[in-house]
Amino acid sequence: MNINDLRVGLIGGTGEEGRGLALRWSSAGAKVTIGSRSIERAGLAAAEINRVLGGSYVLHGSNKDAIEGAEIVLLTVPFEHAASTLEEHAADFAPESILIDLTVPVSFDKGRARYVDLPEGSASEHLRARLPERVYLVAAFKTEPAHLLARHNEALDCDVFVAGDSKEAKARVMEAISFIGGARPVDAGMLESARALERMTVLAIGINRRYKIKAARYRVVGLT
Amino acid sequence: MNINDLRVGLIGGTGEEGRGLALRWSSAGAKVTIGSRSIERAGLAAAEINRVLGGSYVLHGSNKDAIEGAEIVLLTVPFEHAASTLEEHAADFAPESILIDLTVPVSFDKGRARYVDLPEGSASEHLRARLPERVYLVAAFKTEPAHLLARHNEALDCDVFVAGDSKEAKARVMEAISFIGGARPVDAGMLESARALERMTVLAIGINRRYKIKAARYRVVGLT
Repeated sequence: MNINDLRVGLIGGTGEEGRGLALRWSSAGAKVTIGSRSIERAGLAAAEINRVLGGSYVLHGSNKDAIEGAEIVLLTVPFEHAASTLEEHAADFAPESILIDLTVPVSFDKGRARYVDLPEGSASEHLRARLPERVYLVAAFKTEPAHLLARHNEALDCDVFVAGDSKEAKARVMEAISFIGGARPVDAGMLESARALERMTVLAIGINRRYKIKAARYRVVGLT
Repeated sequence: MNINDLRVGLIGGTGEEGRGLALRWSSAGAKVTIGSRSIERAGLAAAEINRVLGGSYVLHGSNKDAIEGAEIVLLTVPFEHAASTLEEHAADFAPESILIDLTVPVSFDKGRARYVDLPEGSASEHLRARLPERVYLVAAFKTEPAHLLARHNEALDCDVFVAGDSKEAKARVMEAISFIGGARPVDAGMLESARALERMTVLAIGINRRYKIKAARYRVVGLT
């Protein structure tokens, strides 16, 4: 893969996760478009990143703009809005495009994070059932803290677990991730593995709280 | 805690996990009793460990022997036998003793590991419901590969996630784990977190298979 050929689009890309990944992939050479329901907010986010990068690298537009023409689309909206957003934009995805699902269904009870069980077993499987068949769904970046992604001067220094039912799509995403500094892509198997990954995120949120830290994340030991 | 005061008993302690932890805790100074349904097999396992340690350190007996008088009891039987074993020995636990549950419900489908969903959400919660109230249940060592535990010359070099509803019991287990070389105990929260931990084990088994490695395990990054 030549990173300069990689076109990435972000749905709801104005949050910490979206801005952080837009900057990291853009500075690696990918062509990134930040999408949002508000073009104004997308423009502000892109301007902020371009200021950091020192040039006009990142594009912006509507979510439709971000999806169309992108080879890899990132779903960086909260889980609560994920299904409705995908349903709204089902027609916008190019055939054989890849959607990376970053969502984790979590609720907070007196400050304590709890995983929200879904009938399909995970958010990724829930969304898979709502996505056109011509789009590949890959779960990734589930366990990376959003504000760590946003701290662009900091290497991620962790493993990025990648799960999906299409080996080719998964390999493509893993290769794209390998361009991000400090991120080691790890093949986490079929999409069903999202059941583990999403719960690992909730576990990390709890570890953050108990140890008064901010960016608990994971590395696999024994894998070189 | 003085490690020399720690009395550890192992239910079904003749497997790799049991032998490995018996040796590691015994060599740290704890008083360890290996229990088994077969006293003969318990004796062979203890003799093997004592040969490595160069003295008569580890005791052996029936599972009842291992449970009675132990402050921390390890449940090192396969998940399939866990509930029936606990029901058989419910009366043998001392009040306020701690049972560490290491079980993970997993099935294999053409070599691929799959997590077996349980109505209670996890093996630990399933077993909690079958254990007398006077016994504390703590989930730990769920994500450590059995044969790594058994390779006694090798430091574990990973985080040992510890989950449980009693803060005191959890703290006691974490302290006991801190005597094992290379094992960092990490407070994983309430027993419900076993839902994440058990699935992480299945994820690690899959990573072993895909990467042709043998001892994938985890470390939390960002926690010092």
